[in-house]
Amino acid sequence: MSYYHGRNIEETICALATPAGVGAIGVIRVSGNHAIEMVNQIFKGTNLEEALSHTLHFGKIMEDTVVIDEVLASVFVAPKSYTGEHTIELSCHGSPYIQQRILELLIKRGARLAQPGEFTLRAFLNKKLDLSQAEAVADLIASNSEMSHKTAMNQMRGGFSKEIMLLKEQLVNFASLIELELDFSEEDVEFASRPELKSLVQKLFGLIQSLVQTFKMGNAIKNGVPTVIAGRPNAGKSTLLNALVKEERAIVSAIAGTTRDTIEEAFVIDGIVFRLIDTAGIREHTSDVIESIGIEKTHEKIRQASIVLYLFDVLETSLVQLEAELLPFSSMDLVLIPIGNKIDLADAKQIREKFSVRTDILYLSSKDQTGMEQLNARLKQVIDKDQINNDVILTNVRHYQALSLAGESLQNVLESMSIGRSGELLAFDIRKSIFHLGEIVGDITTDDLLENIFSKFCIGK
Amino acid sequence: MSYYHGRNIEETICALATPAGVGAIGVIRVSGNHAIEMVNQIFKGTNLEEALSHTLHFGKIMEDTVVIDEVLASVFVAPKSYTGEHTIELSCHGSPYIQQRILELLIKRGARLAQPGEFTLRAFLNKKLDLSQAEAVADLIASNSEMSHKTAMNQMRGGFSKEIMLLKEQLVNFASLIELELDFSEEDVEFASRPELKSLVQKLFGLIQSLVQTFKMGNAIKNGVPTVIAGRPNAGKSTLLNALVKEERAIVSAIAGTTRDTIEEAFVIDGIVFRLIDTAGIREHTSDVIESIGIEKTHEKIRQASIVLYLFDVLETSLVQLEAELLPFSSMDLVLIPIGNKIDLADAKQIREKFSVRTDILYLSSKDQTGMEQLNARLKQVIDKDQINNDVILTNVRHYQALSLAGESLQNVLESMSIGRSGELLAFDIRKSIFHLGEIVGDITTDDLLENIFSKFCIGK
Repeated sequence: MSYYHGRNIEETICALATPAGVGAIGVIRVSGNHAIEMVNQIFKGTNLEEALSHTLHFGKIMEDTVVIDEVLASVFVAPKSYTGEHTIELSCHGSPYIQQRILELLIKRGARLAQPGEFTLRAFLNKKLDLSQAEAVADLIASNSEMSHKTAMNQMRGGFSKEIMLLKEQLVNFASLIELELDFSEEDVEFASRPELKSLVQKLFGLIQSLVQTFKMGNAIKNGVPTVIAGRPNAGKSTLLNALVKEERAIVSAIAGTTRDTIEEAFVIDGIVFRLIDTAGIREHTSDVIESIGIEKTHEKIRQASIVLYLFDVLETSLVQLEAELLPFSSMDLVLIPIGNKIDLADAKQIREKFSVRTDILYLSSKDQTGMEQLNARLKQVIDKDQINNDVILTNVRHYQALSLAGESLQNVLESMSIGRSGELLAFDIRKSIFHLGEIVGDITTDDLLENIFSKFCIGK
Repeated sequence: MSYYHGRNIEETICALATPAGVGAIGVIRVSGNHAIEMVNQIFKGTNLEEALSHTLHFGKIMEDTVVIDEVLASVFVAPKSYTGEHTIELSCHGSPYIQQRILELLIKRGARLAQPGEFTLRAFLNKKLDLSQAEAVADLIASNSEMSHKTAMNQMRGGFSKEIMLLKEQLVNFASLIELELDFSEEDVEFASRPELKSLVQKLFGLIQSLVQTFKMGNAIKNGVPTVIAGRPNAGKSTLLNALVKEERAIVSAIAGTTRDTIEEAFVIDGIVFRLIDTAGIREHTSDVIESIGIEKTHEKIRQASIVLYLFDVLETSLVQLEAELLPFSSMDLVLIPIGNKIDLADAKQIREKFSVRTDILYLSSKDQTGMEQLNARLKQVIDKDQINNDVILTNVRHYQALSLAGESLQNVLESMSIGRSGELLAFDIRKSIFHLGEIVGDITTDDLLENIFSKFCIGK
């Protein structure tokens, strides 16, 4: 018998796999050694225990003589299922009442309600997915833009794991050589030249570092690029916001009220979500923000931003005033885009001359929507899409931490080599680095780690 | 080519069939002549066009070279599907973004988004269900108690239609006899004795009437029994409400936040939902209600109730006062249950003597929860469960109207017979009655009727 967190993973689990609420249909997932046999006891139709894998069967769910629902049962015979176990998916009517009745019947027959993510946990324990792939399943479900979808899909399909496994493999080979030397240490042999080994570690360290460096972008892709629209009252902030958000609304219109539910204010440009940091106060009383930039709370909010769109009225603002307003941002780690608004009301040439010393200003009219394309182009530049398209991107904070630690260990190796430390120390640090890479794909796990990862999943996944 | 409401029903339709929002999985349904072929164009895996009906296929949904999702495709080959058409159900990840992308791909390949209820409409048009069965699908999805589930399930499985068809068949036989007589009218034959015919019509009329009479209960089962808790302030109304609602909470706890979302305040006793009419004002200032019972708005709310639980404090209330308070209810068409509360604080025998003239009083302590069982029993009596268990119950207002009209026509027949009207008139009224019965099961439909019925369905059903 196998246990995990004190829960018997040989138990058969069940859960509603579709979102809660009334709909056309709902799907109840049942997985475990006894899944098919248990469902068969409450199913009137084909004998599901004799059904072939990957077949569908119409029948009735019965409680004694009462028909609870007419359903379609999908049969998956182990190991050909998501979890790797026997699995049945019951497609029933989308009534929460009916779904509850069916779950109660299954529980009566010995199943228990699944914990969040428990189906995917079982898939991991049955080696259908490695840990980073399992984590990507949750990211994929939460993905809400072309780019977050792309990175999650790549990770789920094993692109990221492959990269990690390649690094690990090279380190394992390296470790073997060092350890072989240790075994023969009394004979003073060298199985690989030190300069060659050093250049290999340097190369691997470089690869890890460049992967670590993709995290900032990966995080922005996954969670949206934190963006603030700032500026004095009447600078045209809401008009600009509406113009930006409108685009995103068009994109989500096919399934109304879905994506927008999860992100309060966001817009999508070229597959990237730009997420507006909640700056209700800032947007209402922007002059305060600038005047009282020292106030910690406001400062904090601005600090969360990757991009500040600073809007000003080209007619009402003098160059001196603008420079003063932009000054507090200059020392911050963010992309500042000063935007001269209401260009429609002014003589464009004259205005450009007035602000000519600041070449970073973008001019537009949020009312006429002129200049919006240039703004979109500027926002796109903030994200280097070529990198996303060509490389593996780190989006998961756990992976970021593990890779950083792997990198640190390799740095120790390099240091040890340069000052001629013993082979034992080299081997120790290389093993540490391998350990951290293994943590990412789940070669080594603890119950706490698994609990932490899967508890964030939804029920039924 | 077949048209319905100007929409080509030969078009292939698609929709998300599971509730909107993030979940473990979502199901996209595609139905129509070209459903399998269309999905096959974006599906990388088995060739779905060669797949057997009722088989499941793992594969990838592709947009050119980009993997949009890894899905399971369920193949249903016409006519062995819900709609009777070729159908594919794609079980994809529960990400609204992914679902939208897949729907967009299908639309690009020539499918269109389904209207609400359009899958069931097609099932009806393809004679997989009659109209009253189709209507029961929506009721089944909305069912939230044992009884509403039971009546909807019986109706969906054809129990109600069978009853109607039996009535209709007898009327059709009857009409044939009358019309045969008309054909031979010059010969003055009678193919059936008038007294025999009369007693048959009387029997059928009686059956229709008793069916019509089940509507009040059917409606209560379907929509909940409208119930008001009234009484002076401090009579213990909220404590009683909590005691009643608690029971229901326990029942829905397995899938939290589902059933209760749709009904604001409700409790379930023995499979029947008792729905509290929104009487926020009444419950807060009940004394006002009684004092100003003439005020139309309050009166209106009370008039919607089937049951009034009138709570009073056994210590603070005199018999005279109680009678005065109960008086306004006596002329109303509702079940009044006077409840003497706080019996725990009083000498029970003395209290019973004080109110002995009113034998309908139920004594309890909502604080101690003593007497709750008696209240439950009394509420159960209001609904005659034996009738629900043994008979077909009318729950649909459209069926109620059609049956009432069928009954009226039969009444005309009886009247015509008793005063010896011509056979033509008899035949006309019998045909009218048959027409109304046919409306129920959908022998005769209009676009407006279908529009009216199916537009209330959810998308994807």
